[in-house]
Amino acid sequence: MFFPIQSEHCFISLFLSSWASVDHPIHAPPTSGDPFKVTFDPPAHCKLRFEGGVMTVTPGPDSERKSFNWPHPNLEDFLKDQNMMFALISDGPLMSFCYRRLSYLSNKYQLHVLLNEMKESAAQKEVPHRDFYNVHKVDTHVHASSGMNQKHLLRFIKKTMKNSKDDVVCRDKSGKEMTLAEVFKSMNLTPYDLSVDMLDVHADRNTFHRFDKFNAKYNPVGESRLREVFMKTDNHIGGRYFAKVIKEVMEDLEESKYQNAEFRLSIYGRAMDEWDKLAKWAVTHRMFSDNVRWMVQMPRLYVSFVSWVLNLDLVYTWTDLTNFQVSGFDSVDDESKPEHLMLDKDSPLPEDWTSPENPPYSYYLYYTFANLVVLNNFRRERGLSTFVLRPHCGEAGNVTHLVSGFMLAESVAHGLQLRKVPVLQYLFYLSQIGIAMSPLSNNSLFLNYHRNPLPDFFNRGLNVSLSTDDPLQFHFTKEPLMEEYSIAAQVWKLSTCDMCEIARNSVLQSGFPNEVKEHWLGPNHLNEGIGGNDVSRTNVPDIRIAYRYHTLVDELRCICRGAKGSGDHGDGVAEKPL
Amino acid sequence: MFFPIQSEHCFISLFLSSWASVDHPIHAPPTSGDPFKVTFDPPAHCKLRFEGGVMTVTPGPDSERKSFNWPHPNLEDFLKDQNMMFALISDGPLMSFCYRRLSYLSNKYQLHVLLNEMKESAAQKEVPHRDFYNVHKVDTHVHASSGMNQKHLLRFIKKTMKNSKDDVVCRDKSGKEMTLAEVFKSMNLTPYDLSVDMLDVHADRNTFHRFDKFNAKYNPVGESRLREVFMKTDNHIGGRYFAKVIKEVMEDLEESKYQNAEFRLSIYGRAMDEWDKLAKWAVTHRMFSDNVRWMVQMPRLYVSFVSWVLNLDLVYTWTDLTNFQVSGFDSVDDESKPEHLMLDKDSPLPEDWTSPENPPYSYYLYYTFANLVVLNNFRRERGLSTFVLRPHCGEAGNVTHLVSGFMLAESVAHGLQLRKVPVLQYLFYLSQIGIAMSPLSNNSLFLNYHRNPLPDFFNRGLNVSLSTDDPLQFHFTKEPLMEEYSIAAQVWKLSTCDMCEIARNSVLQSGFPNEVKEHWLGPNHLNEGIGGNDVSRTNVPDIRIAYRYHTLVDELRCICRGAKGSGDHGDGVAEKPL
Repeated sequence: MFFPIQSEHCFISLFLSSWASVDHPIHAPPTSGDPFKVTFDPPAHCKLRFEGGVMTVTPGPDSERKSFNWPHPNLEDFLKDQNMMFALISDGPLMSFCYRRLSYLSNKYQLHVLLNEMKESAAQKEVPHRDFYNVHKVDTHVHASSGMNQKHLLRFIKKTMKNSKDDVVCRDKSGKEMTLAEVFKSMNLTPYDLSVDMLDVHADRNTFHRFDKFNAKYNPVGESRLREVFMKTDNHIGGRYFAKVIKEVMEDLEESKYQNAEFRLSIYGRAMDEWDKLAKWAVTHRMFSDNVRWMVQMPRLYVSFVSWVLNLDLVYTWTDLTNFQVSGFDSVDDESKPEHLMLDKDSPLPEDWTSPENPPYSYYLYYTFANLVVLNNFRRERGLSTFVLRPHCGEAGNVTHLVSGFMLAESVAHGLQLRKVPVLQYLFYLSQIGIAMSPLSNNSLFLNYHRNPLPDFFNRGLNVSLSTDDPLQFHFTKEPLMEEYSIAAQVWKLSTCDMCEIARNSVLQSGFPNEVKEHWLGPNHLNEGIGGNDVSRTNVPDIRIAYRYHTLVDELRCICRGAKGSGDHGDGVAEKPL
Repeated sequence: MFFPIQSEHCFISLFLSSWASVDHPIHAPPTSGDPFKVTFDPPAHCKLRFEGGVMTVTPGPDSERKSFNWPHPNLEDFLKDQNMMFALISDGPLMSFCYRRLSYLSNKYQLHVLLNEMKESAAQKEVPHRDFYNVHKVDTHVHASSGMNQKHLLRFIKKTMKNSKDDVVCRDKSGKEMTLAEVFKSMNLTPYDLSVDMLDVHADRNTFHRFDKFNAKYNPVGESRLREVFMKTDNHIGGRYFAKVIKEVMEDLEESKYQNAEFRLSIYGRAMDEWDKLAKWAVTHRMFSDNVRWMVQMPRLYVSFVSWVLNLDLVYTWTDLTNFQVSGFDSVDDESKPEHLMLDKDSPLPEDWTSPENPPYSYYLYYTFANLVVLNNFRRERGLSTFVLRPHCGEAGNVTHLVSGFMLAESVAHGLQLRKVPVLQYLFYLSQIGIAMSPLSNNSLFLNYHRNPLPDFFNRGLNVSLSTDDPLQFHFTKEPLMEEYSIAAQVWKLSTCDMCEIARNSVLQSGFPNEVKEHWLGPNHLNEGIGGNDVSRTNVPDIRIAYRYHTLVDELRCICRGAKGSGDHGDGVAEKPL
């Protein structure tokens, strides 16, 4: 921690970069004006009807539009495609083909590294001023409620207890109001006594394959009351403390200048006014940072889901969300739970769901996606932002989750199970669907670090990024994202070039707007291949980008040849020159 | 990095700990007065004579003492013992015995953990205020010249170039003086251009098993000139820059409050006045911190060694060293280099060494130790501090290095090769010789992280600590020591209890004085077993300490039984109840 140097350095680099690329600096211009100034559009006068589990919108009588004909995926098509996918992933010859292509991609990459490592490193040294530390990186998967590390939360609790112990923070069972001091008294704890050990929020050997135990770790000192007071947006103090600690995390990110995050906030679906409460929390506490974007996560609880769709009409006009920069939706829960049902044409519609069983993963994903399509069309019409679907997918459990993810998701979190399904893994490669991986999280929950498939995925060219998931539970240092990168670099011997490529992937996967990405990655970052790469911002040499691009094109060409019936893929592979 | 919180917290904990344990705080009282005020004793009037490679001291004519009879190890005894050791480590039955005892210790520990993990964790939670973050830990093996991380060095160079580019910093080949600006010009570099990539000081895939390449990494931008200017104590600017950057590192340690380090400084033995120059550097720049102790490291170069012994007379009166808190000597070099000679009774004495071959490891270690014994006796007489021998040992190369280490060293750095020699490993366990391990360093040079024996050593009860070795080459974050602990904890699933035990080991191994350790570990830390443990300072539960103590006593008892001729060890093991 060399604060003097750092602030010093900030000044230098600011001053220098100002004459270096004054026309187009690497940092996007800071947001000006009041990001929370909401200008409500005139009412849309639409009818919202819940039809077959999907909200449909029809123009009101006095609207000039007679109807909206928005493309709208229907269950039948989805099921047809899904069955096709199921057939594909279990087709013997196809499995061998994909497995061989993946092995081929691994070996080809090894060759590339052996031949070009030095060139890549030289190319990076030629870039003035730029290195891994000052390329933009995004923590593509992190939950706000565990966005601070354990030491930070401890300090925050102690500080709060010191400065505002008389705040009324909650009600006890009898409904009597309690001050923070009384809460501590009820646990007979003094803030001085409190230690990281007592807090006991860190994952340990006993959380491995115990998602339930892991969830319990969210309760500091095992007290759901402390979680309620310090880590909720909707509580007796209107989430004031939580807002404050998250603001501190956001300040750390701003201080770091190049570290950014996409925080998940929960909609549980317990009450009809949750959406408004969440937006109100964000607006009241001005939860805004140029280094942060937000995602809404929904636990896969039936009640939550139904209320989610039934609440959609709120979201339809939820302009707050726009200003509070929500970029998409995440679907969260323990994927390792066994699923006894599956989505088929006979599955009851959400509005008719009565079974005590929880609907399966694909059920949630399909209906969420279908509703999002309509919602986005509507919001686009109204000039509002649109949302993407970036669910937790393939952390554990049935591989069919990844089929739904492949068909419906913009990108996924974890994707661990891809290691078991070559066909899907190959498809994720071909379609370059983003995968936000969190090896430290996996290491505590589902898969030991050295067995994590991230290095294989990365070598083969899958679009992977590094994310922290839950710094509160997994990380030790003051810079969780850097810690995540550091451990990956050390254990898997990643080169600076590899790390910069992963950082670049994280920006591409992230929900930050294009105007921002233009600064972080370069004005043409949407172009394919080296045309889209600006090494002076990404610090990824063109050699690497070219390799990835041409390799992908070759693979697609190989597939097309196959599709044109060029005969046995196997030979195709064997014949294929490097 | 939450500076506000931290400073806040500093205040709280200061304020709280003041009324918590005002009588005996966990921090030793800060050094008062001028640590560099040297009071020279009257001259000793002794004759120093170099006899058989060892300095001998005889009282001068006008001294009241007629002679000093200090015990002084002689080569013959050393060789006899060494041969015995060689016989032991290659004795078949003994190898099996030790191997079985070590496996037994591993399994016994596993049992202990399975049965007591929860108790240990509960015991830790009962300790008010204390956790892994606020127990004292010492970086037991770190080289000053690479004590800052790469980002820190980069910022320091940029800052220096910005503020003092006109300093005359060195002479070019022609002897003409050069300013810092001219140095950069000669490399045609602007400070703005400079990046971590250009600096190129970080170890990478290409340093694995290439100690030579690794050594080259010490030259920023591959320019020995920059190393000369920024990372030397003895250069054209009297090591001013180096002193400044190390002071910044020391400030970071003080800021962290609980992190401490033992920095190695080099004596190359190129000139006779090196000792004085080094001390002068330390005194001039007031290189002092309560969080730091110093060690002198000597590369195993013959010239260096000879000048070291020939220079001993300087060291005899080197009171500066005392004030500048040098706690011992380290012996450094590439151990993997093949050795063609070995120490025997026919080896020429240091003063007669003429062979172009470099003397073997054991030669350096024996003569260093022999001379240290005399030196320490002398300094003790004079009321000066004494020095310990804590060499690099067993990082690579011949296992016989570890034999010398076992016989002569207070503790060793690395000790990796112990994994190959069960007898020695068992002896290191029985004698509890400290081992400062640096798995991240090994990972880049000699052994992949997941193959590092540290977890095995630790489980068996060897006295291991964690150290960084070279943050400049290996670490990414702003807290190298915490990064080292974090990665170990994650990859090897260490519990908080394990980490606190390792931290405690690091303090015990360190050269900090007992008065300091009394604060860090407790007033009775010299006692064995739980009597010596103060859980309120170490955060290591008595259960763990008791387990380690009783296990060790059992092992020693088992050995004694064996010595009394209780017959076959093998059965002894089998019969031994848990």
